[in-house]
Amino acid sequence: MKIEDFLQENANLVDEYLEHHFLSLRKESSLVSPILYGVKGGKKIRASLTLATGLSYGIEKKYLLPVAGAIEMIHAFSLVHDDLPCMDNDDYRRGKPSMHRAFGEAMAVLVGDALLIEGLRLVAGNEELIKFGGEEKVLGMVNVILEALGIEGMVGGQVLDLEGEGREVSEEEVGKIYRQKTASFLTASILCGAIAGSAPSSEREVLKNFGMLLGECFQIKDDILDVTQEKEVLGKTPGKDKLQDKATLVKVKGVRDSEEIMKDKWEKATQLLSSLPRSFSLLLEIARFVVERKY
Amino acid sequence: MKIEDFLQENANLVDEYLEHHFLSLRKESSLVSPILYGVKGGKKIRASLTLATGLSYGIEKKYLLPVAGAIEMIHAFSLVHDDLPCMDNDDYRRGKPSMHRAFGEAMAVLVGDALLIEGLRLVAGNEELIKFGGEEKVLGMVNVILEALGIEGMVGGQVLDLEGEGREVSEEEVGKIYRQKTASFLTASILCGAIAGSAPSSEREVLKNFGMLLGECFQIKDDILDVTQEKEVLGKTPGKDKLQDKATLVKVKGVRDSEEIMKDKWEKATQLLSSLPRSFSLLLEIARFVVERKY
Repeated sequence: MKIEDFLQENANLVDEYLEHHFLSLRKESSLVSPILYGVKGGKKIRASLTLATGLSYGIEKKYLLPVAGAIEMIHAFSLVHDDLPCMDNDDYRRGKPSMHRAFGEAMAVLVGDALLIEGLRLVAGNEELIKFGGEEKVLGMVNVILEALGIEGMVGGQVLDLEGEGREVSEEEVGKIYRQKTASFLTASILCGAIAGSAPSSEREVLKNFGMLLGECFQIKDDILDVTQEKEVLGKTPGKDKLQDKATLVKVKGVRDSEEIMKDKWEKATQLLSSLPRSFSLLLEIARFVVERKY
Repeated sequence: MKIEDFLQENANLVDEYLEHHFLSLRKESSLVSPILYGVKGGKKIRASLTLATGLSYGIEKKYLLPVAGAIEMIHAFSLVHDDLPCMDNDDYRRGKPSMHRAFGEAMAVLVGDALLIEGLRLVAGNEELIKFGGEEKVLGMVNVILEALGIEGMVGGQVLDLEGEGREVSEEEVGKIYRQKTASFLTASILCGAIAGSAPSSEREVLKNFGMLLGECFQIKDDILDVTQEKEVLGKTPGKDKLQDKATLVKVKGVRDSEEIMKDKWEKATQLLSSLPRSFSLLLEIARFVVERKY
């Protein structure tokens, strides 16, 4: 199977799972339609990372899907708040109007909150998952996700990102921003699969280091695409980093050097995976897709 | 001990606990100072509800404080997002400038997110609490909190609140808004104390019904104070409900009838508590304070 097909199949499964979950359980709330609007579309790479990791440990997809869905809801939360006028002020996302353009600013704040809360509920409140993995595993996933989102993770990274706008930044500073705002949560999506699969702590440690490197690659690639790709292909507005004078590696090192740095990190990441006593071929394929993708 | 002193002592303990937690662990992030700005001050009634309930089950304060702190952080999250210009647009809160006035709008969105995430971490990631109560209790608290915040709880209620602005609403509609946006989370703060205390499910059910009635009383009182009290006493801008034509019980029934309805609910609530085989004198005192308070 081509990796693009694996990604697309997972994206569809996650969309179907979330649609069924929200339409069947809580169709009466006017939050359901914007929640689904927020999660639909996108490559859903993080969901595929959870699924790919869990599959490598022999876990069935049905136990992983609620977690993969949760990961994508929480990712969507970060996009919705990030696109707000007072933040990155983006009108266009995943090939359609961003949340605040489609549903208004007040709703966008609340839908973002709801995506985070309901996403966490999918993990913490999933009875099937508790029956299959026990409270310890489920609580472990909740903690891995929260840690990746918190002060030392995504939200902290977004603050650094704000503080980095419009001034000189070093390569080290940019690296710290990327690791916090992007790599930490991308790593959490891998670790949730590892927790589901009862990975020994030594393997979790290697997967964590792999995830952080892959996350940096992902963000560097994103920033390169921001200056080299068209709106129609990206599904979001390109050229915004320069306009907002964001702290990006492209700004510090230029496109060509950024590509070299990315490939270097990618090689280190794949070497880490190969050092493990188990095959992670799907993860490796996703990692290759991340650095080679055109959108 | 007068109930005002119990409340004040707990408010101080929670402030000290959170200050110590964030200053000692993560003093390098520029999120720490606005997080503490957001939680400091206020009556911290929800924290006292957690503490009072847990104390009635013989649980020591040291095990309850992280949860009480988490409850107040999550409450602060809701206030910070609620005060945003695109939401209720409030410049004044707890006797000082609201978050977006003090730190800017982008930071207010992120600090709100951080208060929710780090608040949840205080419960889910508290090793002491896990050692004392086990994963099951901790996960139980996380789920009770998330359910109270989600689509059928606070966030759903805030959407109903938005949708209720500027139009005719019935007493029933107002009741539904109050139960979702205010009573559900206030109830969660009580239930966390009950979970810590291993309350049997029959008692939890009664405490839940008590909490929902108390939460409605709390919101009715809030709306009455909004039309009868001064800014200096309230610590927030009064008269805003009328200005924004909010769906309040005062709008539907007037101040006098609203007071009667509140007292009726308060009596039902206290009767529920008295039906339990255990003494909840502190909860009863807090309930009395809620309906009699002047601020």
